[in-house]
Amino acid sequence: MEIEKRSMEIIAPYLKNLNLTDEETKVYSRMIHAAGDVDYASIIKISSKAIDATKKAIQNGKNIFTDVEMVRTGINKRTLSKFGGEVFCKVADEEVKKLAEREGITRSMAAMRSFGEELNGSIVAIGNAPTALFEVLRLVREEKILPAVIVGIPVGFVGAADSKKALADQNQIPFITVEGTKGGSPIAVAAINAIIYILNNSR
Amino acid sequence: MEIEKRSMEIIAPYLKNLNLTDEETKVYSRMIHAAGDVDYASIIKISSKAIDATKKAIQNGKNIFTDVEMVRTGINKRTLSKFGGEVFCKVADEEVKKLAEREGITRSMAAMRSFGEELNGSIVAIGNAPTALFEVLRLVREEKILPAVIVGIPVGFVGAADSKKALADQNQIPFITVEGTKGGSPIAVAAINAIIYILNNSR
Repeated sequence: MEIEKRSMEIIAPYLKNLNLTDEETKVYSRMIHAAGDVDYASIIKISSKAIDATKKAIQNGKNIFTDVEMVRTGINKRTLSKFGGEVFCKVADEEVKKLAEREGITRSMAAMRSFGEELNGSIVAIGNAPTALFEVLRLVREEKILPAVIVGIPVGFVGAADSKKALADQNQIPFITVEGTKGGSPIAVAAINAIIYILNNSR
Repeated sequence: MEIEKRSMEIIAPYLKNLNLTDEETKVYSRMIHAAGDVDYASIIKISSKAIDATKKAIQNGKNIFTDVEMVRTGINKRTLSKFGGEVFCKVADEEVKKLAEREGITRSMAAMRSFGEELNGSIVAIGNAPTALFEVLRLVREEKILPAVIVGIPVGFVGAADSKKALADQNQIPFITVEGTKGGSPIAVAAINAIIYILNNSR
């Protein structure tokens, strides 16, 4: 707890010109801490309704759907479960493996596709695979699937920046993302856990 | 596979002045990709014997001990198991929780301490907690515990940089680390998986 407080103090000067709300400050700080990289202050993008939408979804016991096991592992499931929600990841399922082979798509894409209508009203958390984020955006656009919020933070040099730009360029679903090549599972986890803790501390 | 190849090509120019071996190039590339951050090229530190020591430990079926579940989750356990090794994390154990309370230390420290002599000859992988890395270095110094290699990449603004400097400043145990505040579970995972894949591809 003391480490967290000290960390927030160190990060604070990098946020002071961003005009953030208290809740945004908490989310930014936890994301920046998870990367150990203050340059995130200028590349984190949170749409205006994203934190409220995430809070409401958690409070209503909605589930969280992730692209990779590392994101599922990192989310504080014990605290989330106080609100009724659970966290699901299908990337290692046999059924998803077969779907990916049959359709010639990545397993991460197949995993998101197989969630299908379960994503309606839920929280999507992507920390690794650009293809998973592109697939969720396709589900929104073409199949009228409407998650409550998309935390989309894939990482790397092939597709990640483009997938996150596509997320930030749509205005149908509230989102939390990071511009460019940086990102990854702990950053997506940090955003979600920050909001879980905001809710838990105000119970 | 194609994404991985393209990613390596994009990263290559950032490595060309570092005089890396082929194996070091693979480890660096995977770590840089996991962060989506080419600035890692200048802050990754791999001691001269670290890759060989890690290869030998894996080939001899040695286990990997991690500070957090996200590191355990990310390591490719299926491929590792071909060589006989397993991955362990104790941070959520009841026994570790009690030890932490009794000794007034963090759970991450208690988890590493409770591994004790199991760490001899093994691979230590730390992706989150500076206190875990400090504790492993204390075990080496004071209790003559000798891991084969320490992949020590805690992240953040409180203690992480100091713990990694302490790792790089000792010369008893081969190490893989990252200077400064950056790091995290996917970076530690990337270093280990890169070496698992080097071995697996040469089987």
